Amino acid sequence: MPDTTESTPGWLSSDELQLVRARMPILYVEAVPVRVDESGEVTSIGLLLRIGPDGIVSRTLVSGRVLHHERVRDALLRHLEKDLGPVALPRVPASLQPFTVAEYFPTLGITPFHDPRQHAVSLAYIVPVSGDCRPRQDALDLEWFSPQEAASAVVLDDMPGGQAVLLKQALAHVGCLS
Amino acid sequence: MPDTTESTPGWLSSDELQLVRARMPILYVEAVPVRVDESGEVTSIGLLLRIGPDGIVSRTLVSGRVLHHERVRDALLRHLEKDLGPVALPRVPASLQPFTVAEYFPTLGITPFHDPRQHAVSLAYIVPVSGDCRPRQDALDLEWFSPQEAASAVVLDDMPGGQAVLLKQALAHVGCLS
Amino acid sequence: MPDTTESTPGWLSSDELQLVRARMPILYVEAVPVRVDESGEVTSIGLLLRIGPDGIVSRTLVSGRVLHHERVRDALLRHLEKDLGPVALPRVPASLQPFTVAEYFPTLGITPFHDPRQHAVSLAYIVPVSGDCRPRQDALDLEWFSPQEAASAVVLDDMPGGQAVLLKQALAHVGCLS
Amino acid sequence: MPDTTESTPGWLSSDELQLVRARMPILYVEAVPVRVDESGEVTSIGLLLRIGPDGIVSRTLVSGRVLHHERVRDALLRHLEKDLGPVALPRVPASLQPFTVAEYFPTLGITPFHDPRQHAVSLAYIVPVSGDCRPRQDALDLEWFSPQEAASAVVLDDMPGGQAVLLKQALAHVGCLS
Repeated sequence: MPDTTESTPGWLSSDELQLVRARMPILYVEAVPVRVDESGEVTSIGLLLRIGPDGIVSRTLVSGRVLHHERVRDALLRHLEKDLGPVALPRVPASLQPFTVAEYFPTLGITPFHDPRQHAVSLAYIVPVSGDCRPRQDALDLEWFSPQEAASAVVLDDMPGGQAVLLKQALAHVGCLS
Repeated sequence: MPDTTESTPGWLSSDELQLVRARMPILYVEAVPVRVDESGEVTSIGLLLRIGPDGIVSRTLVSGRVLHHERVRDALLRHLEKDLGPVALPRVPASLQPFTVAEYFPTLGITPFHDPRQHAVSLAYIVPVSGDCRPRQDALDLEWFSPQEAASAVVLDDMPGGQAVLLKQALAHVGCLS
Repeated sequence: MPDTTESTPGWLSSDELQLVRARMPILYVEAVPVRVDESGEVTSIGLLLRIGPDGIVSRTLVSGRVLHHERVRDALLRHLEKDLGPVALPRVPASLQPFTVAEYFPTLGITPFHDPRQHAVSLAYIVPVSGDCRPRQDALDLEWFSPQEAASAVVLDDMPGGQAVLLKQALAHVGCLS
Repeated sequence: MPDTTESTPGWLSSDELQLVRARMPILYVEAVPVRVDESGEVTSIGLLLRIGPDGIVSRTLVSGRVLHHERVRDALLRHLEKDLGPVALPRVPASLQPFTVAEYFPTLGITPFHDPRQHAVSLAYIVPVSGDCRPRQDALDLEWFSPQEAASAVVLDDMPGGQAVLLKQALAHVGCLS
């Protein structure tokens, strides 16, 4: 899970967040942005390109915390807008049933997901976007891949912390993992 | 499940269909057409008004058979266009995972679903529509209901064959059954 | 969401939990304990009977917090054992996909779910149990209801904070809400 | 989808089935038999070993037709018993929501799934089994694989008609596709 800058200030100071992260699982949402054709079939998957504090470039999904008193669907919208810009026209699902729940542990090996900063539990959704995507903030670029490309080692190897696994789960869920 | 006229001719003659219906479960798709707000939350549910051969008016979901060599998502699109017109702009889900499978038996009481003509197994989906809906063929009208109205006895009592149960399952799935 | 006493001490002191509850959404799991027949069909639903601090008796689902560094499936097991005893033999689902996510807000009316103490986001699962259930701690009793009884007003009216809605969603998901 | 011999005679003669297969999608169920640990996590996946009419050995999932007037859960039970024997103790899911729907076309390339005999639409479920499995009929053997082994090319390459894709979708759904 990438170290995304929150565009909206959280309800916690940086110090407090630090403290809480050591004590509680933190609730996240993750979105796999996709383009779909008229029949709903996924034609491409959007991945963000980021440069981490260590200068390493990685590909990531849209993700971020759910804030106090924020609905899951509003958190999804907020992070989609933060990462894809204001005219991406995301279609947040009508049902809150996620396709999976990804559990990021600070310890390696408990699940396929790893986040050195915290124990994060992430509700994961497929989100079709139909508008123009203009990555913002710490994202350098958004690149669209065919399902075949997205499932290739060259793309998956650039995804840190287990997000490659989550992407494969998403591709499987939409019938695009062959 | 209403006796919907197929807009596209099937691969079976009427006699053959009659025969098969007595021997095999018939695969259906059903769609609950909904309007959603920007955050994906369902704001209204569309129900078709039909007059049956017996002159009885009933409310129904979009439904129909899957034809030979037709994908589930193409069957959904075809029936949505048949029932809602060509400019309804339905958003068929990216994943084929239905929210439930409804089993209509010719015998009463095996499941909550009943179809005197056949054993039909129906894959049920929520489908947001964003365009204009103009009911066609044997549908008299399409009426939009708030989730509260859709869940009320006055609406549900007009839905035959267990479709009221399916509608309640759909409302529950999108978090609108209170 | 009932005020369940945690059987295992959390990683937070009571004061710290108080503070965090005012700042962050708290991750919960909820389980609907069911009996199933050989074909997997739900035959009865188990509801806990509790007496609140105000002396009011209510019916509740199994629920509780996910602790730091605890997997969702371990949290489910822990709360099932806490509420149903050590020989309930719960069958935690193989997939982490919940049937829904319930969002409990301290403010009334944002969702059907309400928890005056906190913003809690709850992953909800159906859990078949095949052993003997012996409610413990603050639960007075566990009572089994047929799906029809569970969906009746007399039962649902005793469930606080929107858990009646969650129970109906669960019944709809397993095809038992007629 | 393997050419499984039906243990229970169908409602159609062989000739009639031939005819119908050329005209209608045929409804199937597929089950991925798994062993789970106490917390519900999948520890191994069971694959059947069959010899086809061409003498080629392949690995397959449990699968078969749904018969007229048969519930999906009864079809699942029947095929599980047919393929795994009478004491496998399968736990058919409480909810009929499949993890996916696999569409097998007689034409290659429309979906990842292919069945030269027919257009088959298959509801796919994960089914934990806790008893002894004794493959019967045309299955030579049942072999258990760890999730890692099941996802390896050496196993997947032996699965015909797209069942390798379905197995990967199942592994993704239970969080075991890394």
